[in-house]
Amino acid sequence: MSNCIIAQSGGPTAAINASLVGAVSALYKSGKFEHIYGSVHGITGVMNDNFLDLSASIKEDPDFLEKIKLTPAMYLGSCRFRLPTLEDDADIYNKSIYEKIFRNFKKLDITAFFYIGGNDSMDTVDKLSKYAANHNIDVKVIGIPKTIDNDLMEIDHTPGFGSAAKYIANTVREIAYDTYIYDVDSVTIVEIMGRDAGWLTASSVLARNSFSVAPHLVYLPEVAFNEEAFIRDVKEALPKYRNLIIAVSEGIRRADGTYISATDAKEDKFGHAQLSGAGKTLEHLVSNKLGVKVRSIEINVLQRCAGHLTSATDIDEAYGLGEHAAKLAIEGKTGLMASLTRTSNAPYTIEYTGVEVRKVANEAKSIPAEFISPNGHDVTAACIEYLEPLIKGENAVPFTDGIIDYPSIAHLTKH
Amino acid sequence: MSNCIIAQSGGPTAAINASLVGAVSALYKSGKFEHIYGSVHGITGVMNDNFLDLSASIKEDPDFLEKIKLTPAMYLGSCRFRLPTLEDDADIYNKSIYEKIFRNFKKLDITAFFYIGGNDSMDTVDKLSKYAANHNIDVKVIGIPKTIDNDLMEIDHTPGFGSAAKYIANTVREIAYDTYIYDVDSVTIVEIMGRDAGWLTASSVLARNSFSVAPHLVYLPEVAFNEEAFIRDVKEALPKYRNLIIAVSEGIRRADGTYISATDAKEDKFGHAQLSGAGKTLEHLVSNKLGVKVRSIEINVLQRCAGHLTSATDIDEAYGLGEHAAKLAIEGKTGLMASLTRTSNAPYTIEYTGVEVRKVANEAKSIPAEFISPNGHDVTAACIEYLEPLIKGENAVPFTDGIIDYPSIAHLTKH
Repeated sequence: MSNCIIAQSGGPTAAINASLVGAVSALYKSGKFEHIYGSVHGITGVMNDNFLDLSASIKEDPDFLEKIKLTPAMYLGSCRFRLPTLEDDADIYNKSIYEKIFRNFKKLDITAFFYIGGNDSMDTVDKLSKYAANHNIDVKVIGIPKTIDNDLMEIDHTPGFGSAAKYIANTVREIAYDTYIYDVDSVTIVEIMGRDAGWLTASSVLARNSFSVAPHLVYLPEVAFNEEAFIRDVKEALPKYRNLIIAVSEGIRRADGTYISATDAKEDKFGHAQLSGAGKTLEHLVSNKLGVKVRSIEINVLQRCAGHLTSATDIDEAYGLGEHAAKLAIEGKTGLMASLTRTSNAPYTIEYTGVEVRKVANEAKSIPAEFISPNGHDVTAACIEYLEPLIKGENAVPFTDGIIDYPSIAHLTKH
Repeated sequence: MSNCIIAQSGGPTAAINASLVGAVSALYKSGKFEHIYGSVHGITGVMNDNFLDLSASIKEDPDFLEKIKLTPAMYLGSCRFRLPTLEDDADIYNKSIYEKIFRNFKKLDITAFFYIGGNDSMDTVDKLSKYAANHNIDVKVIGIPKTIDNDLMEIDHTPGFGSAAKYIANTVREIAYDTYIYDVDSVTIVEIMGRDAGWLTASSVLARNSFSVAPHLVYLPEVAFNEEAFIRDVKEALPKYRNLIIAVSEGIRRADGTYISATDAKEDKFGHAQLSGAGKTLEHLVSNKLGVKVRSIEINVLQRCAGHLTSATDIDEAYGLGEHAAKLAIEGKTGLMASLTRTSNAPYTIEYTGVEVRKVANEAKSIPAEFISPNGHDVTAACIEYLEPLIKGENAVPFTDGIIDYPSIAHLTKH
């Protein structure tokens, strides 16, 4: 029996470990592999011989995988390493990277490699599968998608997004409760992640209900931002709602492509430019132009790693995509990414598929025009219909003495 | 039968509505009052005739109080109104405020007034109870404590603090998981609320476990901050831990009393000074002095209003203090604040008491010296022992379609 390796890459999400667990669980149950290795710190673990034997851990502790499933960020750690393009005239150094990876695959008798990540990681999957094909090496290379940004092509929505969207929507609702208590006009600007795609910012509208339509204004990177129009929007909405809550993407930019925070950039005493965030920049703008009580809130990294508030739908699908990736490799497929298609919205149903990874690598999916309101500062009913199913269902995490009891990731850091 | 009024004031917490529900529930069950009114926007609701009839709401919906109990912020809204000091030579305007309040009390046949809030609100309780005594008016005035800051005198710890501490500790643990995934040195600075008292920042240490001692460094407003010592601390700790997580209070200041963020203040293009937070200021300092990868995270307002992650101990005690306040008034007491004493730490037990509100009003409790490590950047085992019981136990909140289904607070804002 041969062996296989799985690794994680890119930024953390609350669902990426569920994909790891789904894949490893299916690989283990298949009985097709003697050892299932986890490469520590993505593809660099393969290059540096940094592995965990996950199948051994399962044998030691039958609950091993279950404990990891709801742990946020990445059990195996990440990397930001991009494989060089390997043209015919590639230099020796670039060639040596591929040779090192495949030499290590051979040394460990690896016949399948799984990479969980976003479009950069899918580029790695694409390059490795092509190298294997070109050199007649029998290693199946399969990608498993993840990104909170929901910007991958060839998939209805990405694992990690639903949990992030749920965290953001609940956070915005709680911010509304926090804000509504004072009997004075106020503007609260909530800055949400998403440099190029506004999916996470859009999902803040799920906070709305029958007595609170917060966020009252929504600004996406897909719509050219205009400071004067923004101030006009705020001026119009403020008397109508009194406590205005505004969701803005960190990536909003003007028609000429410049980020709005760039205007606000200042140099510190050492001469380094300091970029304020979009939220802080708009806070200053509102304060200066309207003189109203204003605050900006940057939803922190918990929007991507709040294991304590995840979407059951998201975690289930992340797990399912991991399982499906294992199935694809076992069937002999390579150069594919496990994907999902929405087959119905009411009731919500999906189907797992495999898509050519080259169509996903290095591409990004923005919010389509039909999901954005004509006024440019809200989303349409069709967008809400698309988003709603993705945040449904809750997952219980284990608490000990009031703190969530996630498993040790001592192999990733010093302590 | 006479009537009574309850109101809330100051900043929001996740537990203040539990105190409201505890008090109203006990007052209702006592059968001593025909109407239990809620004054909207604190004491200003009494002045402006802005009331809800809470007893009527209970009669309409027996679950009314239960739904409010776990709702964050304030069901009745807040105010930032400070009663004037009423000396013998008080001017007509100041006198008229008191006269208006007690005229409205008389009009509604009020014999008890309850005010839930921090030390400013206890000042209101003190003044109103003295005015009633001086004018032989039979209105019992009782305070119910709340503040996330844990800085009230005459109470072991304040309701609202335990839930905020729990949110912070869990957030810091999840930030650690987010941070540990990369194989590069990094510094993450987490800014936590608490302008004058470091209790919330101290509670971040509850995130520690056997494989992660994050936060590795803790800076409190009780200890004079020194930039050079800070950089030395970071330099020493970084090679030891690689991914350093630092908890800082927003209120840290130098020996001369100046806030560290003041140095970093810059003017925007309109000439207004822009104060960065303590976290952002330290981020720039680390970046400039050490050139290491650094990020600062401001834990947002959810540290005070995350109804989705509260401490059962805290909510139970907030409820119990509300109940106890009702009991004190019914027993004929006035000018007291419901309080609690820790009678044992293992097992953790408390006892409800009443303390003279004048000893609480306008005073603040800092972290005592024996709770702070001699090195000035950590807390002692005694501090941890004090903190640990306060975050224990979880509360289930109702979700509908993935979002927490808090009751309407439409009476507080436009929509």
